[in-house]
Amino acid sequence: MNNVEFESLLKRIKQFTKDRDWDQFHDPKNLAISLQLEASEVLELFQWTKDNQIKAGKEDEISDELADVMYWLIMLANHYDIDLAKALDKKMDKNEVKYSIEKAKGKSDKYTQL
Amino acid sequence: MNNVEFESLLKRIKQFTKDRDWDQFHDPKNLAISLQLEASEVLELFQWTKDNQIKAGKEDEISDELADVMYWLIMLANHYDIDLAKALDKKMDKNEVKYSIEKAKGKSDKYTQL
Amino acid sequence: MNNVEFESLLKRIKQFTKDRDWDQFHDPKNLAISLQLEASEVLELFQWTKDNQIKAGKEDEISDELADVMYWLIMLANHYDIDLAKALDKKMDKNEVKYSIEKAKGKSDKYTQL
Amino acid sequence: MNNVEFESLLKRIKQFTKDRDWDQFHDPKNLAISLQLEASEVLELFQWTKDNQIKAGKEDEISDELADVMYWLIMLANHYDIDLAKALDKKMDKNEVKYSIEKAKGKSDKYTQL
Repeated sequence: MNNVEFESLLKRIKQFTKDRDWDQFHDPKNLAISLQLEASEVLELFQWTKDNQIKAGKEDEISDELADVMYWLIMLANHYDIDLAKALDKKMDKNEVKYSIEKAKGKSDKYTQL
Repeated sequence: MNNVEFESLLKRIKQFTKDRDWDQFHDPKNLAISLQLEASEVLELFQWTKDNQIKAGKEDEISDELADVMYWLIMLANHYDIDLAKALDKKMDKNEVKYSIEKAKGKSDKYTQL
Repeated sequence: MNNVEFESLLKRIKQFTKDRDWDQFHDPKNLAISLQLEASEVLELFQWTKDNQIKAGKEDEISDELADVMYWLIMLANHYDIDLAKALDKKMDKNEVKYSIEKAKGKSDKYTQL
Repeated sequence: MNNVEFESLLKRIKQFTKDRDWDQFHDPKNLAISLQLEASEVLELFQWTKDNQIKAGKEDEISDELADVMYWLIMLANHYDIDLAKALDKKMDKNEVKYSIEKAKGKSDKYTQL
């Protein structure tokens, strides 16, 4: 994802919602609900699987579902003037301190929600 | 988010998980669960609010929580060799057809889960 | 919900899954995923609403969606031999200590996730 | 769960929220968000597990987490005057038609979200 693509995506999303007069629904709480619902759509692709892979016949849907999560993530970040790349870089700084290699190596119990 | 930043973030995440020997936990089903859990952490910031804004005293947390969602989104996209920018661009093509301005303008009932 | 109804519901659910040979999919992780997905279906009824009520045309669906959550809740409780009524009664004991009337009265910030 | 227990639980929950003046936060959208957040807490107990069982050291928490889901389920059902036992019984009628034994037996792909 280069800068041109990202800016162009944000612009496209903004135009899309403006054309449909949907900004009226976009208070941040509603955006957060939609983000959660789309993340659940991703998870649903793995429902009932025993091999932890996407369920049969649903392999083509993961790209669209991840895109939907990205859509709401960009909307929320835009609402709060957050630069997602900088936010993640800053969070990785914290993660590297919180989950020191020494303590966390190979241990899932040290690896709860980042 | 420019290209250099994005590639560098992905590289950093990969190194972070490799250093901690955490790839063993990263089957896609577990990644999808973590994506969902982090999206819920975002939503939790809005729990009980009446004004649909982040609850008092939690304003500083939104950046970290969105970063966490981005983290798992990148991990899942990387697992399936999906380019998030291209995926979203392609999804927007579909959205613009599915939600025609004529039919969808100003109507939240036309605007369910993308 | 009286005892006869509850026992009869559990028996009915068990027969339903046995008849379909679905127990093979019911490891507790998969049950927990389904519980989460059904809770999201409930939340989806409120997506985009401004008045915090169920969205127009969806009012008849809440009963079925709550039933679906109840279904997985009973399945998970049964898996772990948990009596839901006793579990909730015990949890209320804790809640009454954790959220003392004195400290919690009228304050949503004291009222996060029980 | 017998009738006396259920009625007594509902009464206890109502008194608990009244004592804390929390009814003001309990519009149904907020209740649905809390239901979803608690279902995520259940799912979190299984995060990163490879054996699909609750993660080590968290076994004692499942009872409390299921109780929390039950709490919000009862609150939402009460808000809409829904009898959970009748609602589930009615939903099972539909499930038995929708997922006929003949078509659904042994097939997880027939077994998506009820």
